[in-house]
Amino acid sequence: MTRISSKQNPVIQRIRAAIRGDGDEIVLEGRKAIADAILGGWMPIAVLERGVDITDKLFDTLAQTRSPQGELGLFARPRTTAAAILARRDTIAIALDGVQDPGNVGTIVRLAAAFDAAGVLLLPGCADAFGPKAIRSSAGAILTTPVASVTVEELLAADVPLVATAMSGAPVPPPARNAVLVFGNEGAGVSEELLRHSTLLAIPMSGRVESLNVASSAAILLAQSFGVR
Amino acid sequence: MTRISSKQNPVIQRIRAAIRGDGDEIVLEGRKAIADAILGGWMPIAVLERGVDITDKLFDTLAQTRSPQGELGLFARPRTTAAAILARRDTIAIALDGVQDPGNVGTIVRLAAAFDAAGVLLLPGCADAFGPKAIRSSAGAILTTPVASVTVEELLAADVPLVATAMSGAPVPPPARNAVLVFGNEGAGVSEELLRHSTLLAIPMSGRVESLNVASSAAILLAQSFGVR
Repeated sequence: MTRISSKQNPVIQRIRAAIRGDGDEIVLEGRKAIADAILGGWMPIAVLERGVDITDKLFDTLAQTRSPQGELGLFARPRTTAAAILARRDTIAIALDGVQDPGNVGTIVRLAAAFDAAGVLLLPGCADAFGPKAIRSSAGAILTTPVASVTVEELLAADVPLVATAMSGAPVPPPARNAVLVFGNEGAGVSEELLRHSTLLAIPMSGRVESLNVASSAAILLAQSFGVR
Repeated sequence: MTRISSKQNPVIQRIRAAIRGDGDEIVLEGRKAIADAILGGWMPIAVLERGVDITDKLFDTLAQTRSPQGELGLFARPRTTAAAILARRDTIAIALDGVQDPGNVGTIVRLAAAFDAAGVLLLPGCADAFGPKAIRSSAGAILTTPVASVTVEELLAADVPLVATAMSGAPVPPPARNAVLVFGNEGAGVSEELLRHSTLLAIPMSGRVESLNVASSAAILLAQSFGVR
């Protein structure tokens, strides 16, 4: 078999488009992430191993991480809707309001899988959950966790109780089900409009810091919610 | 007052050395982080405001983040010892074993402050807690949280119970005091030698992911430990 060496190769073109975030496909990197996806029932469109299926040189222009045993897997981008995520009331869903760091978005997708949330809803202003950095931070959970965009209007119309963290909130655990946990922008927090419609709770802390990183807050609340489910 | 415009200026030289991690000083970026540090009792050696104390051009060569209202603050690097951290038995301490990502190290320093841990002990192989990325992720907590290097031998000799997370651990909450919570490398986890000396506990999860990000695990366990203190 000939190693692919040309950028013009149609599979390479699709991988490049997927990395740019164009179209209906995503790229996973690394043997472990690809194996996990396949075990999870995702059939790859293509898997390219560095130096075997593709020249080292071309591979290195595509991969985000350096590895002599590199693999790239092209998969169909999972599709779901906000309505499908909001319909599940036996657990909680997550809504992100302007979470700008793709590492935070991906980490929260991983947490959603770990603690069996219905999915992650992306309000306007969030980083792309299907971009390379978010996919990497999700550790493959991007394929097994429903993720969909949502507007403030859709979220409010769904009539699921909203729960957000705020300094002024009550120091009580989050609900186990039938709720959307809303996490806000790294600097500004959750928008005023959503706060007005949310039950506010606070994570008990020492007072030595003003706030937590959004992914840390999500980890704590999702673990608590799972623990009482 | 003249704006500093020369790289040869002695304060600029000290800032550059601090950013490189040389010597006994660290740099905080941003008005809020600097104000927090001053409120916390830290007297800056110098504060430089972009366009006021220092030319925009020179400022931009030093700052990690782009901001038209940028400020850089030079502070003495806080000094503490592993022995001082390990002496506090009314709370828990944290030990990081080969945590390589400076964002994870900084986030865990911020969590240590939030949940009143005695401090963060850095075993060999950890990212520099005083580097620019870790300082930024700590959101200023690097100044208020004791951080010190430690060897495996020193940690074991201190005779404080060690607690580590492992898939095979018991699904019980962490202790509130008189313990060191050990968190391991992003890929390989906690080293075998330390695992052998640790009580193992597991964070109850859905089984849809194999593990959590190390900072997520720390967030969950530190919040639990604080909650029962």
